[in-house]
Amino acid sequence: MQKFLEEAKKTSRTIANLDTHKKNRVLREMADALIANSDFILEHNNKDMSEGTLNNLSSALLDRLLLTQQRIEDMALAIKQIAEQKEPVGKTLEGWITEDGLNIQKISVPIGVIGIIYESRPNVTSDTAALCFKSGNVCVLKGGKEAEHSNKAIAKVLKEVLAKNKLPQQAISLLPDSTREGVANLIKQDKYVDLIVPRGGEALIRYVSENSSVPVIKHDKGLCHIFVDKDAAHNRIIDIAINAKCQRPGVCNSMETLLIHEEIAAYILPGLYDAFMEEETVLKGCEETAKYIDVQIATEDDYNTEYLANILNIKVVKNVDEAIEHIAIYGSGHSESILSENYTVVNKFLDHVDAACVYANASTRFTDGGAFGLGAEVGISTNKLHSRGPMGISDLTTFKYKIYGKGQIR
Amino acid sequence: MQKFLEEAKKTSRTIANLDTHKKNRVLREMADALIANSDFILEHNNKDMSEGTLNNLSSALLDRLLLTQQRIEDMALAIKQIAEQKEPVGKTLEGWITEDGLNIQKISVPIGVIGIIYESRPNVTSDTAALCFKSGNVCVLKGGKEAEHSNKAIAKVLKEVLAKNKLPQQAISLLPDSTREGVANLIKQDKYVDLIVPRGGEALIRYVSENSSVPVIKHDKGLCHIFVDKDAAHNRIIDIAINAKCQRPGVCNSMETLLIHEEIAAYILPGLYDAFMEEETVLKGCEETAKYIDVQIATEDDYNTEYLANILNIKVVKNVDEAIEHIAIYGSGHSESILSENYTVVNKFLDHVDAACVYANASTRFTDGGAFGLGAEVGISTNKLHSRGPMGISDLTTFKYKIYGKGQIR
Repeated sequence: MQKFLEEAKKTSRTIANLDTHKKNRVLREMADALIANSDFILEHNNKDMSEGTLNNLSSALLDRLLLTQQRIEDMALAIKQIAEQKEPVGKTLEGWITEDGLNIQKISVPIGVIGIIYESRPNVTSDTAALCFKSGNVCVLKGGKEAEHSNKAIAKVLKEVLAKNKLPQQAISLLPDSTREGVANLIKQDKYVDLIVPRGGEALIRYVSENSSVPVIKHDKGLCHIFVDKDAAHNRIIDIAINAKCQRPGVCNSMETLLIHEEIAAYILPGLYDAFMEEETVLKGCEETAKYIDVQIATEDDYNTEYLANILNIKVVKNVDEAIEHIAIYGSGHSESILSENYTVVNKFLDHVDAACVYANASTRFTDGGAFGLGAEVGISTNKLHSRGPMGISDLTTFKYKIYGKGQIR
Repeated sequence: MQKFLEEAKKTSRTIANLDTHKKNRVLREMADALIANSDFILEHNNKDMSEGTLNNLSSALLDRLLLTQQRIEDMALAIKQIAEQKEPVGKTLEGWITEDGLNIQKISVPIGVIGIIYESRPNVTSDTAALCFKSGNVCVLKGGKEAEHSNKAIAKVLKEVLAKNKLPQQAISLLPDSTREGVANLIKQDKYVDLIVPRGGEALIRYVSENSSVPVIKHDKGLCHIFVDKDAAHNRIIDIAINAKCQRPGVCNSMETLLIHEEIAAYILPGLYDAFMEEETVLKGCEETAKYIDVQIATEDDYNTEYLANILNIKVVKNVDEAIEHIAIYGSGHSESILSENYTVVNKFLDHVDAACVYANASTRFTDGGAFGLGAEVGISTNKLHSRGPMGISDLTTFKYKIYGKGQIR
């Protein structure tokens, strides 16, 4: 493993300095190669599917695992879109002359070697490999065991394109030891690995962040709230609440708890109730909510749960301060929204809520790389450091200072 | 401890939104209070000094521990300079309108609760407290045991100013349990602590980065090189080499190894030798170096050592590529410099050397917040993520996205 990672580190120095033309040409060839080799990839995906069926994987999991001709074409398209993005490396972020006359340039550079730990969906393999390649990084991929055949086949196709272009194949690597011990070993190799991005269940993420000596950017849980202020524009409340909860309940930027200002509760709750009933949403609520509509009483646990399902907590609060306080206690720092026309209240919410994304008058569902206009994303960071919110290719860079002198000494 | 940190987290929400006028006024009052209370502080520093003498601390350590009236005035001045710096919070870093018409604003915000673990010098207590306060963060300080009385006295004076201004005193906190177990506990509290900055010996830094579940920004070792290319301007070589090694050998941005292009070795080594002998530098060198001047033969260990002393390795290399390769193996990613007039060679070095600061034609000694014009610094990050190189107050911020909608749903 150590030798493998040492090699990855060396490779990162080559990849870091490739020119944009070459990177984009290689990416387009990778997209074409995925389509040209779809039979090969589908064959290996079939093996994963049969083993998954034998191992009684849930139908939801099997669906995430499944590749089709169409899904492979989507993977190829995603790579082509990554190729079209602006070069993230070599940007001058700042520059100034010091009192000593040194010309300091703060320049974006690749991070180096990035380890990504993920589950099930095989398209993550090609997306992540392309994002890392475009941003000049070497990726070490550790996919789920259930997708092993598919991931190996996809990586093989991409590596062949690297070889054809006389580039080191280790620029895109699968972790050679994909057991738990392999992961345990990987996250201790801070000499060779610059960043770990764990994506997956809470247990995995906690394990990695508690044990890694390599910096970790978590792609963690999203426990998102919407606060309906008494001065919310009435005509928007139901549309936004339904969209945030029901359009895709299984994703991290969907809403789990709706907070409602007490002065508007009696007026708005019956209409909300009808709309959610039409969507077959399971409603839980505080004692105050239960005065107006038929809900189970929400517990402390409910407010702490990321349902990832069509279930919603409703809580009546006194004012924006109580809403901010509730979010500080139960929120996961992902996405929070306020619906209000009141200038002061909106600004208070945006200033005082500590989350990657704080919205005024919009659904929380917009938190992703695509909707932000960042292009494909590595994930949505719930870290506060380095990168926060949707992580596009420029979040896969760091910087260095280049300092141009004229013989200065101190 | 948990309750203490929970309180610190709550306090961070108050401190994050203080206006600039108030912060600066409080900082100036802190500076004045340090001077007004110098007798009190010196008295407690005396206790540390007597205990240190009893415990046989080295004279170098005792000197770092010692406070004088002048040193307290310097601490006050540093706080006043921090007050004068530009507000780091609330800057619009980027902003754009998405295709859906959302107005996205990327705004700088404080990190939250920052734990800083450091040794000996009591001025770090007031510098760090002021830097964190100015950038809207709560600091949890864990100083060295040998400076405990001094640190407590300084913190008491600063906290009194907070109280007088009706601000929560926990904005500036000393870790209540300052034992090893206290530190072990602190670095696991990722629910309440947002960042740990360890400053100190290699063992401490390794322990923290291997065991922390809180993100860590290391202030680690500086093993810096200068490469003298064959096309270096001859008149600068000796001045820069002497400055980088001898002006202050005990600091992290001083040079440990001088790399010399083989075509210039015979010409330049005798002059360098004379200059270093005048500075009483201990010289070690490769076999090739030993052909020209009188040096001990440098070992593999020597190239890996941050001497922090007036000792230098000299190695003759074939060209810039071998210099880059040597730095990739032995460098610590801190500061590296090339002396050359050749455009292509300089750019190759600046592009391919992976370090926080890469210099052309200047001494490595300029890597610090003051010389960079960033003002006082929390340290020099040898991390690649979030912050790299000298960390000023703006490196103590992260960002959030504020998103202004008009009722958008997906």
